[in-house]
Amino acid sequence: MPTESSTFESSDSVRTATPLRHVQTVTFDKPLQLEKDGSLPRVTVAYETYGKLNEARDNAVLICHALSGDSHVAGHDSEDDPGWWDIMVGPGKPIDTDTCFVICPNVLGGCRGTTGPGSSNPKTGKPYGRDFPTITVNDIVDVQRLLVDHLGISSLMAAVGGSLGGQQALTWATRYPDRVRGVVALATSARLTSQALAFDVVGRNAILRDPSYHGGQYYDKPHGPRVGLALARMIGHITYLSPKAMEDKFDADRLRPRDVAVEFEKRFSVGSYLGYQGSRFVERFDANSYVTLTLAMDLFDLGATQQELARAFSKATCRFLIISFSSDWLFPPEQSRELVTACIQSKAPVSYAEIKSDCGHDAFLLDKEVALYGGMTRAFLRNVASGDSGPVEAKDSHGPTSIFSQHRVDYDRIVELIPEGASVLDLGCGSGGLLARIRSKNPARLAGVELDPAQLLTCISRNFNVVQADLNKPLAFGEGEFDCVVLSQTLQAVNEIQTLISEMLRIGKTGIVSIPNFAYRPLREMLANQGRAPKSHGVLRYEWYNTPNVRFFTIADFEDYCKDHQITIRTRIYLNTESGTEVHEQNDPNLNADLAIFVVAGGRK
Amino acid sequence: MPTESSTFESSDSVRTATPLRHVQTVTFDKPLQLEKDGSLPRVTVAYETYGKLNEARDNAVLICHALSGDSHVAGHDSEDDPGWWDIMVGPGKPIDTDTCFVICPNVLGGCRGTTGPGSSNPKTGKPYGRDFPTITVNDIVDVQRLLVDHLGISSLMAAVGGSLGGQQALTWATRYPDRVRGVVALATSARLTSQALAFDVVGRNAILRDPSYHGGQYYDKPHGPRVGLALARMIGHITYLSPKAMEDKFDADRLRPRDVAVEFEKRFSVGSYLGYQGSRFVERFDANSYVTLTLAMDLFDLGATQQELARAFSKATCRFLIISFSSDWLFPPEQSRELVTACIQSKAPVSYAEIKSDCGHDAFLLDKEVALYGGMTRAFLRNVASGDSGPVEAKDSHGPTSIFSQHRVDYDRIVELIPEGASVLDLGCGSGGLLARIRSKNPARLAGVELDPAQLLTCISRNFNVVQADLNKPLAFGEGEFDCVVLSQTLQAVNEIQTLISEMLRIGKTGIVSIPNFAYRPLREMLANQGRAPKSHGVLRYEWYNTPNVRFFTIADFEDYCKDHQITIRTRIYLNTESGTEVHEQNDPNLNADLAIFVVAGGRK
Repeated sequence: MPTESSTFESSDSVRTATPLRHVQTVTFDKPLQLEKDGSLPRVTVAYETYGKLNEARDNAVLICHALSGDSHVAGHDSEDDPGWWDIMVGPGKPIDTDTCFVICPNVLGGCRGTTGPGSSNPKTGKPYGRDFPTITVNDIVDVQRLLVDHLGISSLMAAVGGSLGGQQALTWATRYPDRVRGVVALATSARLTSQALAFDVVGRNAILRDPSYHGGQYYDKPHGPRVGLALARMIGHITYLSPKAMEDKFDADRLRPRDVAVEFEKRFSVGSYLGYQGSRFVERFDANSYVTLTLAMDLFDLGATQQELARAFSKATCRFLIISFSSDWLFPPEQSRELVTACIQSKAPVSYAEIKSDCGHDAFLLDKEVALYGGMTRAFLRNVASGDSGPVEAKDSHGPTSIFSQHRVDYDRIVELIPEGASVLDLGCGSGGLLARIRSKNPARLAGVELDPAQLLTCISRNFNVVQADLNKPLAFGEGEFDCVVLSQTLQAVNEIQTLISEMLRIGKTGIVSIPNFAYRPLREMLANQGRAPKSHGVLRYEWYNTPNVRFFTIADFEDYCKDHQITIRTRIYLNTESGTEVHEQNDPNLNADLAIFVVAGGRK
Repeated sequence: MPTESSTFESSDSVRTATPLRHVQTVTFDKPLQLEKDGSLPRVTVAYETYGKLNEARDNAVLICHALSGDSHVAGHDSEDDPGWWDIMVGPGKPIDTDTCFVICPNVLGGCRGTTGPGSSNPKTGKPYGRDFPTITVNDIVDVQRLLVDHLGISSLMAAVGGSLGGQQALTWATRYPDRVRGVVALATSARLTSQALAFDVVGRNAILRDPSYHGGQYYDKPHGPRVGLALARMIGHITYLSPKAMEDKFDADRLRPRDVAVEFEKRFSVGSYLGYQGSRFVERFDANSYVTLTLAMDLFDLGATQQELARAFSKATCRFLIISFSSDWLFPPEQSRELVTACIQSKAPVSYAEIKSDCGHDAFLLDKEVALYGGMTRAFLRNVASGDSGPVEAKDSHGPTSIFSQHRVDYDRIVELIPEGASVLDLGCGSGGLLARIRSKNPARLAGVELDPAQLLTCISRNFNVVQADLNKPLAFGEGEFDCVVLSQTLQAVNEIQTLISEMLRIGKTGIVSIPNFAYRPLREMLANQGRAPKSHGVLRYEWYNTPNVRFFTIADFEDYCKDHQITIRTRIYLNTESGTEVHEQNDPNLNADLAIFVVAGGRK
């Protein structure tokens, strides 16, 4: 073995073909109608379960595996083989088998127990081979639904999966909306990029044009298309890793390969690694399954345009947690943002985070970032289990835009401005301190936007729907989608002021903006008398050379801006937060207030 | 043909094997010693030339082609086939054959006229096949040197190339430093990323394990490893394109492939495209050459660490122009920056720009961005031809950090502060206005850093050595490398003040900093009396919501900063640029000056 496989275990966890002791099977003898290509007379499903189904039968979590995974998502006991997602599934783990009943089936078309191309074709008594029909992710999910029915579960608490598994989880939400209450989709997309699809095409060409493929009927031959499958696997492996991960692993020793017993080029260490991985894969995976499942993945398509995608999601009734990884170039974060936009456009409750990682597509299988994505999954499942009005548990952790560490008089006033039952979006919501207070107004809908994944985790733990986005850019929310959009002490930390203000006014019927006042008397005096850049408490407590604030303006400046941009100011509240008092209009608020809150509407687009 | 090949012409320009009318050949009968693997008894070189060698024999430009290019870099006349770099080479083109004598040889190991695996092995009378030795980029360049000698050229004006061609150009600089005066290296690197290398390994495995490879002696067989070579080419094609380019080309019609007559999967449009490109490539390229040349590329290694790389470049005596493209993931910009850093560390004169492009690695062959990279190449060649003290032609084009559009009194003062003959680096040099004035002090060395490629082009046209870099991050220049480092009206537009100041003081024996003064009387009054964010002329002319300035500070603030950070201020010059007068220390410059210039030194690291 050229390299530690633990570090480079891929989406398709490599395992020797030891019999899995805990696999159960069920066979459905009724013909299964397929989406594209006829039917299958009989389908067997191999699956494993963990934990116990509760009496209400409402704690089931379906885990959907990726391209070459299997039902063994986790070890069942200390004697058992490790599973491909042991870091996520087990007692006390993010998907907690002490409270959840976990089901993990092998997919239709696979080669680890569920009916696939290597299964016996009842018509011929021989393996299907190339006669196995073209299947789709819909077909894979339909078989999972048969299993879920069989287990007597009418509503899944959640469907969870990454990559091809994420495509399945999303399909549950859109195809069987009344059968699932939560979906966790990691490192996935609504359809493959053309680049990812192209790599699959080359892999299939390598298999199908291998002379040992024998038209797919190689099961009685000494061996199948070993070279072609190994080549396909090598290509896949490269796409699962980030350039940085490959650099870290291979760059230092590029000319010192391990001497592995494989018939592929071994001149470079990355070559001996790929040769080894390719050869090993051939021992445990069926080439026809590889062709069948990559094709299902390539055909998966929830919508080519953002509009079509929103239409697909409009059927969904569950909550969504969508997670991407920064260095994943096979399913890039941009594609997860398209899913999030579709959720938002179809009013589905969604949380989203892009997690910074060097591990590429494989990140969702590795423990390096599991604190964040596992933590989010754990919190999300608890939220789904408890319903929308879950308890507020975590404490505020104030980010750089927080004016106070103690009582937030500005929050009190903002909350007063929000009508009972109004829908509210908080842009720059931090750890959810203001969201938590707004909850007391029983908002019809409540959501937040934040950039920092750690803060997003806190928000999700507090049962908020929050999405990661950069406030310097246009946002996914629709026109007039919220009654109120709040910008609490955020504006001065954003470069693209005009974009942000116009987005607030586009998305909200009204906007609520709180700003620090740079013309507050002590600040003026600091510049006028001392000749120094003003500095104060709260958001103005930083030095000129390290402040997160990049825009400096006054109450008068903001009011001028509104006037110049046809923005109506409906309400003005001027506060002196040092004394904890309100400054009235006749008392020169631009001089005496250190903070102002405006309710605004209109403005040119 | 599934798609317009003009749009997707790759690094390896596809051309049918029509005889090229202008190809010349020369055969060297002396054995050629190879770097790794014995020798070749005889080498023939196929090449084309354009333009005329001048009497001084000093106007020769060697063009080095990429993986599967050839000697036909441009059409020779209106009847001739187009060349693979017609946009760059010809009369009046960036590499101007009216003034330059262009030489373009086919590479050693290739299959377009120069000796390669398909050539006859004098020992056996049969093609070399797999007996063709392992060659390196050094060997390729050694053969080019034989040709250059043969043509009676003792010093090339420049070696120019992209991708594998860039590797050759860099090798000229480091292996034959006294034979080349300029190097233009596009979309290349000091060695491949492990990811790029991995794709090459898979491609070679596909060829070598194709049963039709016949151990490399397929020349007398009905056909060679057609499938393997096509697969390798398909993989290559994906890596030449950016994800965005593939999306634009294939996403809308992904399920509507052209029906091309190829024996590869044609279900998706990207598949029919790749199948077509792969099949077509097989008709014109030799599989053994593909194996030989990709291996040469993979073995190319100017240094695994930045230190080794600097050592390699320390031999170079030429000027460098290095160009990368933002969406090139095969030779990512990060790798070009490593080359630039090595140039800088070894004191080689270098200009560098990363050009924004959607076209991936192929960008250097396409006309989309040729205005920039062609313009830079044209200017660079003119600079090399004319020597270091070329004419200053272009006019200043003032960017957002320019205080005046007219006479720059601050420039005058900065230039006065610079000792005659000192080496100077201008951080944030814009279009080179200040650099042009500093040139009057006969600096031992003069260089600039700028972010905007358009400004960089202007600087190169003015015969300056300028590199693109983000001033928020550490820079490549060494400790104490310049006598003076200048920050002219730049500090207030940069977020990471501390990084930038400490970099200036690390790189320069002294720093010269000019800043706008936010405590200038009219600005104080604006805030104090009107309660509005100060606004003025010059760099302070913007609105609070759209200014490029993100840091606001005063003369006093900057002086405090220096004191707090153990930075010695050696000279202070306070200016009132409105009146064009100097403000003396006793006249409260923090109130009366709108601009200050400091000469500083020291400071903690």
